[in-house]
Amino acid sequence: MAYQDTLRFDTRGRDTRNITPEVSDIVRASGVACGLVNICVQHTSASLIVTENADPDVRRDLETLFARLAPDGDPAYRHDLEGDDDMAAHARSVLTETSLTLPVTDGRLRLGTWQGVFLWEHRSHAQQRQVVVTVIG
Amino acid sequence: MAYQDTLRFDTRGRDTRNITPEVSDIVRASGVACGLVNICVQHTSASLIVTENADPDVRRDLETLFARLAPDGDPAYRHDLEGDDDMAAHARSVLTETSLTLPVTDGRLRLGTWQGVFLWEHRSHAQQRQVVVTVIG
Amino acid sequence: MAYQDTLRFDTRGRDTRNITPEVSDIVRASGVACGLVNICVQHTSASLIVTENADPDVRRDLETLFARLAPDGDPAYRHDLEGDDDMAAHARSVLTETSLTLPVTDGRLRLGTWQGVFLWEHRSHAQQRQVVVTVIG
Repeated sequence: MAYQDTLRFDTRGRDTRNITPEVSDIVRASGVACGLVNICVQHTSASLIVTENADPDVRRDLETLFARLAPDGDPAYRHDLEGDDDMAAHARSVLTETSLTLPVTDGRLRLGTWQGVFLWEHRSHAQQRQVVVTVIG
Repeated sequence: MAYQDTLRFDTRGRDTRNITPEVSDIVRASGVACGLVNICVQHTSASLIVTENADPDVRRDLETLFARLAPDGDPAYRHDLEGDDDMAAHARSVLTETSLTLPVTDGRLRLGTWQGVFLWEHRSHAQQRQVVVTVIG
Repeated sequence: MAYQDTLRFDTRGRDTRNITPEVSDIVRASGVACGLVNICVQHTSASLIVTENADPDVRRDLETLFARLAPDGDPAYRHDLEGDDDMAAHARSVLTETSLTLPVTDGRLRLGTWQGVFLWEHRSHAQQRQVVVTVIG
């Protein structure tokens, strides 16, 4: 059996948001006891990561590192129609995850103590983002 | 139920190819209405990404960026038996995806409007590549 | 049907370990003939990759490259409570995979000839790591 629902988030520009509670709610609603949950962002300039849920400096440092790996406004980019953050956002998406698949155990999302699922907005300005969540068991 | 098929692609050296149509065909053939599709490349020097399907400059810029992140012929590499692109190809594979899992809704691959699934050949020369597609619901 | 088991590994500091045999054993034990296996590390400073299983220099070169992409002890990091390798480990985890989903065919993990699944410890010191394996078919 598969159970599917769609989450919608209004982002406020480049930032990470812990969406573990919303994903966990769908896992519980699915009634699946043992299986997998897939989380898939339907955009190419936002992405998903699993990272530490305690110290927000981890995500601040990730912003610092990714600004080096895929800088905004790089003169080498040809794709810049929507601004300096346009191609950088696609590159950050490719370097992280469009889609995550995680275990479900005893009817709950199974993560380690320090793990959280984060939606990472890579565009500078506010966006509406859809995330499809599928639970299978 | 699980449905599985294998796609074969002849690549022409380093390049991206939109394989969304081939994956979508297998999803339809599976008869799965709601579930997940997994796409898995069976090689360590080619990989998969989800990225923008409209402007080809996005993928050209990704080549530019990845040539910086994992340069060909870096003097630090020890693994260079098959040429300057050998280790760079493995590194690009690790920085992207060997395997993608995406939602199936109403019997179809569920992607955002601007999303496509691309096979990314990282070797300089033509290769034969196998991609296993599994649909589960 | 879903079958789930947990693997435990004692790592000896930053290194890669081929866990393909352990994952393959769980796939066989599951009795699933055709489907998917998900492998999920329950930590944010270790990760999973699929890469070449033959020449160990590939993984040595990956260490070299990732030491550039996410250097230890970078002065820009704010998150350094647990040492120079702390934030670098989180970044390496985000650049690779917390979770992998791979095909199962004829009751076996389906990988290409040269592919192996590796647990990558990113911390400098020995750690205990849990990996949840879920087989679905």
